[in-house]
Order: sequence, then C-alpha cells, then structure tokens
Amino acid sequence: MASKTHSGNYFEDFRLGQEIRHATPRTVSEGDVAVYQGLFGPRFALQSAATFAESLGFERTPIESVLAFHMVFGRTVPDISLNATANLGYAGGRFGAPLFAGDTVSVTTRITGLKQNSSGRNGVVYVHSEGVNQHGENVMAFDRWVLVPKRDADAPPPDTVIPALEDAVPAEEFVVSWSAPADYDCVASGSEYLWDDYEIGERIDHVDGVTVEESDHMTACRLFQNTARVHFNQHVEADGRFGRRIVYGGYLISVARSASFNGLGNAQTIAAINGGTHCAPTFAGDTVYAWSEILDRFELPGHARVGALRVRTVAVKNRSCAGFPYKTADGKYDDGVVLDFDYTVLMPKRG
Amino acid sequence: MASKTHSGNYFEDFRLGQEIRHATPRTVSEGDVAVYQGLFGPRFALQSAATFAESLGFERTPIESVLAFHMVFGRTVPDISLNATANLGYAGGRFGAPLFAGDTVSVTTRITGLKQNSSGRNGVVYVHSEGVNQHGENVMAFDRWVLVPKRDADAPPPDTVIPALEDAVPAEEFVVSWSAPADYDCVASGSEYLWDDYEIGERIDHVDGVTVEESDHMTACRLFQNTARVHFNQHVEADGRFGRRIVYGGYLISVARSASFNGLGNAQTIAAINGGTHCAPTFAGDTVYAWSEILDRFELPGHARVGALRVRTVAVKNRSCAGFPYKTADGKYDDGVVLDFDYTVLMPKRG
Amino acid sequence: MASKTHSGNYFEDFRLGQEIRHATPRTVSEGDVAVYQGLFGPRFALQSAATFAESLGFERTPIESVLAFHMVFGRTVPDISLNATANLGYAGGRFGAPLFAGDTVSVTTRITGLKQNSSGRNGVVYVHSEGVNQHGENVMAFDRWVLVPKRDADAPPPDTVIPALEDAVPAEEFVVSWSAPADYDCVASGSEYLWDDYEIGERIDHVDGVTVEESDHMTACRLFQNTARVHFNQHVEADGRFGRRIVYGGYLISVARSASFNGLGNAQTIAAINGGTHCAPTFAGDTVYAWSEILDRFELPGHARVGALRVRTVAVKNRSCAGFPYKTADGKYDDGVVLDFDYTVLMPKRG
Repeated sequence: MASKTHSGNYFEDFRLGQEIRHATPRTVSEGDVAVYQGLFGPRFALQSAATFAESLGFERTPIESVLAFHMVFGRTVPDISLNATANLGYAGGRFGAPLFAGDTVSVTTRITGLKQNSSGRNGVVYVHSEGVNQHGENVMAFDRWVLVPKRDADAPPPDTVIPALEDAVPAEEFVVSWSAPADYDCVASGSEYLWDDYEIGERIDHVDGVTVEESDHMTACRLFQNTARVHFNQHVEADGRFGRRIVYGGYLISVARSASFNGLGNAQTIAAINGGTHCAPTFAGDTVYAWSEILDRFELPGHARVGALRVRTVAVKNRSCAGFPYKTADGKYDDGVVLDFDYTVLMPKRG
Repeated sequence: MASKTHSGNYFEDFRLGQEIRHATPRTVSEGDVAVYQGLFGPRFALQSAATFAESLGFERTPIESVLAFHMVFGRTVPDISLNATANLGYAGGRFGAPLFAGDTVSVTTRITGLKQNSSGRNGVVYVHSEGVNQHGENVMAFDRWVLVPKRDADAPPPDTVIPALEDAVPAEEFVVSWSAPADYDCVASGSEYLWDDYEIGERIDHVDGVTVEESDHMTACRLFQNTARVHFNQHVEADGRFGRRIVYGGYLISVARSASFNGLGNAQTIAAINGGTHCAPTFAGDTVYAWSEILDRFELPGHARVGALRVRTVAVKNRSCAGFPYKTADGKYDDGVVLDFDYTVLMPKRG
Repeated sequence: MASKTHSGNYFEDFRLGQEIRHATPRTVSEGDVAVYQGLFGPRFALQSAATFAESLGFERTPIESVLAFHMVFGRTVPDISLNATANLGYAGGRFGAPLFAGDTVSVTTRITGLKQNSSGRNGVVYVHSEGVNQHGENVMAFDRWVLVPKRDADAPPPDTVIPALEDAVPAEEFVVSWSAPADYDCVASGSEYLWDDYEIGERIDHVDGVTVEESDHMTACRLFQNTARVHFNQHVEADGRFGRRIVYGGYLISVARSASFNGLGNAQTIAAINGGTHCAPTFAGDTVYAWSEILDRFELPGHARVGALRVRTVAVKNRSCAGFPYKTADGKYDDGVVLDFDYTVLMPKRG
C-alpha cells in the first residue's frame, strides 16, 4: 500500500510551467491578528485602531501586509519548500486587495524556472505564487526561488530556464486602497514624518532589539501553517547543520517591519516586495535589530495624498544598528546581517 | 473563619452517584481558535477555511473536536483532578452538537465508580462528564478515571463500584453533522485519500516531530482553564517526582491530532474517543512524534458520503515513529510512548 | 537631517501641566481576550462566559479590568516611561465605562508634578493618564509616578511640585455597571463567598504559583504595545543591572489577579486601583504566588446587590504565601515580595 504521508517535492518532481494548487485555504480572523500582535507587537495605527482605519477610508481594519504575506507563503511550503535547503530570494511581490478578518486565502503556484546545480545533487526552483480571497481577487503575489535537493541524484536534469525577475515592482502597478485625509492625525499615528520628509539615501536606525524565543518562532510558523521541519524539531536538528532549530526567515521580516515603526511610523501599508535575501540563520536567543535606507521615492498618479517609498530594511542579530551594518568591502554581508529586505511602502503625503 | 480557598477534592470527598456542576462556563471565541492554531498548527481544511466548512454544509466553521474536548475537560479539573496523581484513562467519549465561536460550554460530572486501593492511601474515581452549550445541547461527553489521594488515610473506604466501560462508542450513536459534496475538494483538503482508501491494520507514520516548550504547554492549559498545579509551578516541582513541570496529557492529544493530518488529512472531525492512556510523562524539551493504526472502519447508515475510521494514534517522544513503537513483548509500553489514543474519525467516502 | 527615531522623553523634557496625547489608539478584540487568557488563565465567570455576563445585566462580555488597565498603560509608555528607571507607584485608578471587544482606546496624559532628585541626575515625574473609548467615555484613568533620568545633568531643575495623591478612590465615585440577580449563580462563579462573607483584616493565601517564561512576559508586553526596552533585549540587558530581561511590573498584577480567583472568585470587576508598588524585579524562571488581605468593605448606595471590598494583593516570588510574607519589622518589604497592590473590587451582596 502506497504511503499516505506527504513527503514534499524534490527537485526532479517539478516541471516548468506546472501549476500547483495548494492545500488548506485559510480564513484569517481577528484572533490571528491578536496572536500576531502578541508575537511581534506592531504599532502602525492603521492596524491598531479601527477608528484610524476609518479615517483612511476603510470600512474595516485591514490585516497588516506582512501577515497577509505569511498567510500566502504558509500555504506554499508543503509543496514548494518542505525539503528546501535554502530560501534563496524573493522578487516581484505585489499586494492587491486588502485582506480583512473573515476573508479566506487560497494559493496557487506556477513553476517559472528550473536550474540543476553542477553538483547534480540539487537545483534551484523558481516559482510564482498567487493568493486570492474568496471573491477571487488577488491578495498577494510574489516570486521566490529555493534550493531543493534531488531525491535521486541520477534523475536527468531539466532544461535550464531562469525567469526574468524584476528589479522592482513598477509604481504604476501598485494597488492603493486608502488615502490620507486632510487632517491625517500624526499624533495618533506616532510619527510626524510624512512621505515628503524622507530623502533618498537617508538611513534610519530603528534602535530597539528583541530577543527571539523558541516558543515564539514556532508559534508564528504554526499560526501561518508553515510546516518546514527545521523550525520545529530539536530532536532531529540536534544532529543537523547548526545543532538547533532555525528561525523561519519570514519571522525576521515581521520583526524588522515592527521595529521599523520607530522611524517609519507612517508606512501604513506595503505595496510591493521588490526583493529579499535571508543572509544568515537566526536562532532562539539571538537579539534582532533593524535599520532602513530610503532607496527611492515616487509620487503616485491619481493619489495626491499618498506617496511611495522604496526602502531597504536590514535585520541584524546581536549587534547594534547604530553603524548601519550591511556589506563588507568584498560585497559580502557583514557579520550578523540576517535579512536584506527591499520593499515599497505607502505613506501619506502633505496635501 | 473557614478558608475561602478551593483546595480540590480528595478521594473520600467523592460519593457514588454524586453530581457536580462545575464552575466557570466558557464562551469559546475565534480568538481561542487562533491561540490554539498558534499552539498546535492544525491543518484540517474544515477548521482552517470557512469556505471549506460551507462546502460540507456548515453555515459557520465548527471548532476543532479536540479543542472542544479540552474546553469540556478544563471545567472538570478543579473539582475532579486538582489533586489527582494520575489521569488513568478515558472511555465513551461522544462528540455531539458542533461547537461554534460564541457558544458557551457548561459542564456537569457524575461520579460513576469508586475503588479505594489496597494501600488505603488513595483510590480510583470514575466519572462521567458532559458538556452542553447554551441551548442545552450536548457538545461532548466522556468517561474518565483518575487516581486521587486521600486527605485522611483513616477515612473509611467506600463500597467498591467499578462502572461498565465501553470498549468503543457504537457507530449508531455517532452524531454526523456534515456531508461531503460530490465535488469534495481533495486538493484543498490536502489529501487524496478518502475513507475507502484505508484498510484495517494499516499503519501510518506521521513523520513530523515538534519540540515542546514550557511556555507552550502552560499557555494551552491556561487557555483551557486547566488548573492542575503540576503544569505550572517549577518552584514546587523542582522538589517533586520528576524535578520539573509535567505537560498536560491532553496537550499530547492535540500534538498527535495535528501531526495526524499528514496521512489522515481528510479526518475532518472526531466522532468518538473510545479510550486513551497517558503512558509516560512528557516534559519541555521533549520532541513528540506520532503514528496511527486503522483499527476498524464503518459505513454510517443514512450517510452515503461519510464513513468512520476507528484509529489508534500513538504519540512517542524523542524517537522516530518509522518503526511504529508501541508495546514490548511483555505487553508494556515501549520506551518513549507517551500516549495511546483510540478514537473514531469521520471522513468523506467516495460516492 | 533630524533623526526620525523616537527616543522617548527625559526628565527635562516634561513640563508641569503639559498634556500629551499618546500615539497608537488600540481597538481591543476577542482575539486580545484569548491571548490574554492564554497568558494568564483568568477564571472569573463574568469574563469567561457570555451567559454569565448576561446574567449580570451586560449585553456583551466586558473586557477584564486589568486587561483594560494594560491597554491604557501601554499607550503611555513611549512618551512617559520609555527611559524610566523605575515605575515608582500608582494611585487614583478609576475604572469607568466597561470596555468591550471592538472598542478603541485613546489615551492622554497630563504632567501633574515634577521633582528633581538631589543628585541632579534624574527626577520623579507625576502623571495623570486617562483612556477614553471611541465615544469619548472614560474607560480607565490613573495617576502614576516614575523615576526618569535627565539627558543633560546640567539642565536646570524645574520648580518642585508634588501633586496631592489620594489614599484611596472614594466609593461614591465608583462606576458600577452591573448588578447581581437574585439567583446569582455561585456554582458557575466558582465561589460561594459573597461580599457579606469577607471581614476586614481577613487574609487569604491564593496558594497556586506559576513560573514566568521569557516568551510569556514579552508576548504580554507586545500585546499591550508596552515598548519598554528592558523587557525585550537580552543582548543589552546581559550587560545591564541584572544581567537579564526584567518582567513588566504590570505582568505581576495580572498574575496576581488571576491567582486571586482562588479565594476571591466573585470579585467580578475592579472599581479602583488605590495604590501599587513594584517592590522588586521579577525575571523569567521565577515562580509567582499571591495572597490578599481585606482592607475595607463598603456598601454602595443605590446598589443593593453589589458591594465593594478594598483589597491588598501581594505577589511574592519563589516562596509560598502560606505565611503571608509582606514587610519586615523595619518596614521594608520582605524577601521575595514583588508587588504590593491596593485596589477595590466589586462583589455581589446577599439580597
């Protein structure tokens, strides 16, 4: 009798152009928002207060962008990255219709590229994943590429296809679901700095560090239904590469996004994830800091009161970000850098 | 002045036929569901997605069966097992009306048997507990028996009465609240295997292990309002039998049920708990695995599209379940076996 | 370019009479209630069961008083106590309109006193904070005073003004939002003792201790958006005063309030916080116990079926409360005492 256990896909299981509809659609609730609040402590006013959400034109409070990302990402893990050795990068992330409590997210992934490595033992799988709500509206879509081992080293290699990946999501594709009123409340939002006040090249140390606990990062993964084994099983990981459980890379995105409130307090939503790299592993006991650099700024045609800032937020462990640690002279990531995240936020503009 | 502190019941406090209405009725919320999600990461589609619940005929998403069990069980602890040395077994567990967010569970227990041990220092108390919702409908009922010390070793023993306990809940008593549509979505559910595909005697290794943290098992007990002291107090347990806090046995049921998704993904609800034994204690730092054996299969008269599988799920700590560890030649539980759980799930049948 | 990072206020930044409207209004949800349940395990029937809340005259279940306090307190931290060395005391806490899931709390603080210390390096800031709901109704107000360092030791001292602080909130100012029905259900509430049964001077050991975990106290602070750094950052605290993260003092209030159910089970709501002192720091790994003394009892004119008890609840770490540890002969707090909390609860009276 065939095993009824799902063991995930290996490199040779993927086919170019293959479409995978993922299991376990997920209805997001106010409870999920509260658990996320307890895990990451976000303070952006749009997600914190229904009254503030209303002031931006929402009938109900939308789900924080990064939580929406995790809910889409989580669905893809059992099919795409259960056996992955590394989550190599992200690109082309687009946030669409806001996600609200009560909405159900379903996710489909298309295989957009395959490249077996010269060792013949593994390969890179490029995918495009798209999450839709119960009305079929796009909620969040993104490209990523992962390193996946082969089950059978003798399986023949596929034709190498590497998809074109965007450097950044074009501003004209941003979905802008809110507007800042003339009396936008900078006291309630916690920051007096609006889009107009940021300059390209400006760097901000978000100052505060938070220490990661095993319970916290595992709870996050269970909330998102991210089942990757390296996060959960100390019995196996004790003999693994690091001797311990590895924190989900996306956990660092949430830590960094929450920390970024201190300096980017009016970045109410994320419009795009342009790119992202998990530079080094994080473990329980590590303390994570973050800093950001403003990479670009755009006006948004038709949106007089909202502008976009392209931001790089860097998460660093066990080291202050006062010196903005990033890369060394040889272009490698500096000691302690765990996340290099390039994304575009929406922020009120002065009228 | 009499102490106003509740110190729980001792063996000689229980009377055969006694009815105890328990304190602290509990309204279950979407928040509870989310905290449970963060603790155990269940992936059964019925509880994960409102859209899927609707496809099975529910107007709203029912609460996961094991969470309903914990909510009933938790009410009984202060009166029945606060002083218990061991939770010896379960039988006759019947799930009734589905529990929904917003429902309030109230629980009553009847003492169905008493047997003082030969040492004269403790005895076994047999109870039947029944949880009802705010409409008075039965939600979940079960028998259990616990080892309870005597306050006063000289208290006279009661007449020994051991109730008849069922080997298994009869299939004709199952409450079946849902049906599988003709287009039941095995992609969304995460498993292509339906009732028809399982054979008696078949064994499934659920593969994935998860390491238990102190924060997690205490949070679970606090959520369920299970107040048993051995779970919470390291200051006392440091000098106790094991030198540390003991994980609530029911925590293992939830871990095992969540793990069982990988192999029993269409077991959308539990109809009955036939029996259960906590074979050995679990502690923070232990990694828990699970495997299952199909014990029996039933068609359900009047339910053409839903069948029942009687399943034994065994939870094991710090040891892979690839070899299906269970009992040794002398009939004792093998090293590492912490839970032996016999229950009946409902699963879609092919039309 | 000026730093966009909020670094909190120092002693010389505060002005007598200054009004600070705090950032990040907070909509409280059923999810928050569930996370709080998982953290502290409260068992008061009013907050546990919608049916019980209805029996006291509520249309919906109100939020537990101490959670309402935390939600108000949390808003004030970034402006008042981010740099505080110590939270010296509370007084004059009044609970107003009940807080319900869906309500949004906004908080304003007035500086009511300033006193530079003789060292010239820091000073005491006295504040009155008031939280209102989205209808502008007062939800919770309190005075506190904190020790705040100076940024610049040479900054001139302010005139010393120490506000008059009440010994206790007068009973005639209590907001009483509920009444006990003639058939108040002492079985459901978990305690047969009503207001009439408590005597001034009576002391109650709440018996049960709970061990604090790093994950739990940080999750609580993140839920309340209490951003004080000493709670979160082991990398910095390793070189700090204690070598480790310090548990938020308010966490102990919640632990003690939950423990007090065992002996004060009918104390359904808190009317006032008369005073409070965090006597010593608490750390992860500490086990916290609590005991209470009845300080006073009041009838409430116009409320035949509800009375008030003024209570001192003392939280103690790593030490049983059987001997009611409090102060030594020289008036100092005894070893292990971490919280001295003076508050007034509302409890049903016999008809």
